[in-house]
Amino acid sequence: MTDSINRLAHKFSKLPGVGAKTAMRYAYAVINMSQSDVDEFCAALRDVKANVKYCSKCGNFTETDVCEICQKRQADVICVVTYPKDVVAMEKAHAFRGVYHVLHGTISPLEGRGADDIRVKELLARLDGVKEVILATNPDVEGEATAMYIAKLLKPLGVKVTRIAQGISMGSDIEYADEVTLSRALSARVEL
Amino acid sequence: MTDSINRLAHKFSKLPGVGAKTAMRYAYAVINMSQSDVDEFCAALRDVKANVKYCSKCGNFTETDVCEICQKRQADVICVVTYPKDVVAMEKAHAFRGVYHVLHGTISPLEGRGADDIRVKELLARLDGVKEVILATNPDVEGEATAMYIAKLLKPLGVKVTRIAQGISMGSDIEYADEVTLSRALSARVEL
Repeated sequence: MTDSINRLAHKFSKLPGVGAKTAMRYAYAVINMSQSDVDEFCAALRDVKANVKYCSKCGNFTETDVCEICQKRQADVICVVTYPKDVVAMEKAHAFRGVYHVLHGTISPLEGRGADDIRVKELLARLDGVKEVILATNPDVEGEATAMYIAKLLKPLGVKVTRIAQGISMGSDIEYADEVTLSRALSARVEL
Repeated sequence: MTDSINRLAHKFSKLPGVGAKTAMRYAYAVINMSQSDVDEFCAALRDVKANVKYCSKCGNFTETDVCEICQKRQADVICVVTYPKDVVAMEKAHAFRGVYHVLHGTISPLEGRGADDIRVKELLARLDGVKEVILATNPDVEGEATAMYIAKLLKPLGVKVTRIAQGISMGSDIEYADEVTLSRALSARVEL
């Protein structure tokens, strides 16, 4: 295989989940693209680096200093998430009308990540006028640890701190649900 | 999600096997790349379009007019394959010391591809001094049809035409082999 193809495959292999064979498939596909397709691909790559910033309020991806959500919504309820993709998911659900705070990671001692490595202090700096902070990190070990850490920091400050509910998800089967999920679904049961 | 990110994800989604979620994951990964990584990615994309040609003898990918294999090897035995990636596989096996001929496709009436759409006439034009043509297209319906078509064209020209053997592959289990493979393995059995 030619040097140029190998070099391009090597670049593709830096993308998440892309192994050697897939990287080579992508490189072959580029050979079959038109020159204008490749030029547009390069322009799109450069534009993302040039235009995408982090919202100065919530940390989400934006092309303006403050993102559209922070510009347009009341900031009295903040929903804390781990990554920008979680904002996308929440917005798709149309379930939340407040603003977000993106941590860009979780607290993970095993991976050497502490509270200072994620956007915790930025959250503490934006609590004026905030009535509730909803902790919507993932229901896994690091997400829980991060939520509990933040809750401990926030509660003395008098702001209401909530955690999104855990239970069986829509369309799932009790028979196949894991034990932790089942026991949490039971303990958080609601009266009808 | 920002326009730039959506545009980049759209470009990634043109790669084979890349759906919307994977395309978005790739776009996020680019945000986290350094500027120089992105510049190198663009350079690699442009280099492939600028440098990669088809070998004027065998049709394989090359950066020179005639590829290295065609430059260095005897052309008395030609191994016909469907795609450049098949050349890579054959070379990795170190089993063949002749030259290749890349068809860049198979004959497939269902997909509207005839012999004129693949590099059959280029093969006919390079048979001077050729003692044997090995047909190494895939052992599937189109690969077989293509091999049989080419064999019919070549045999009257007096060149020896062979087809790579079919049988049970290394490491496989008779119990799980399909019926066609098993019956072909039996009919092509060799005396010990």
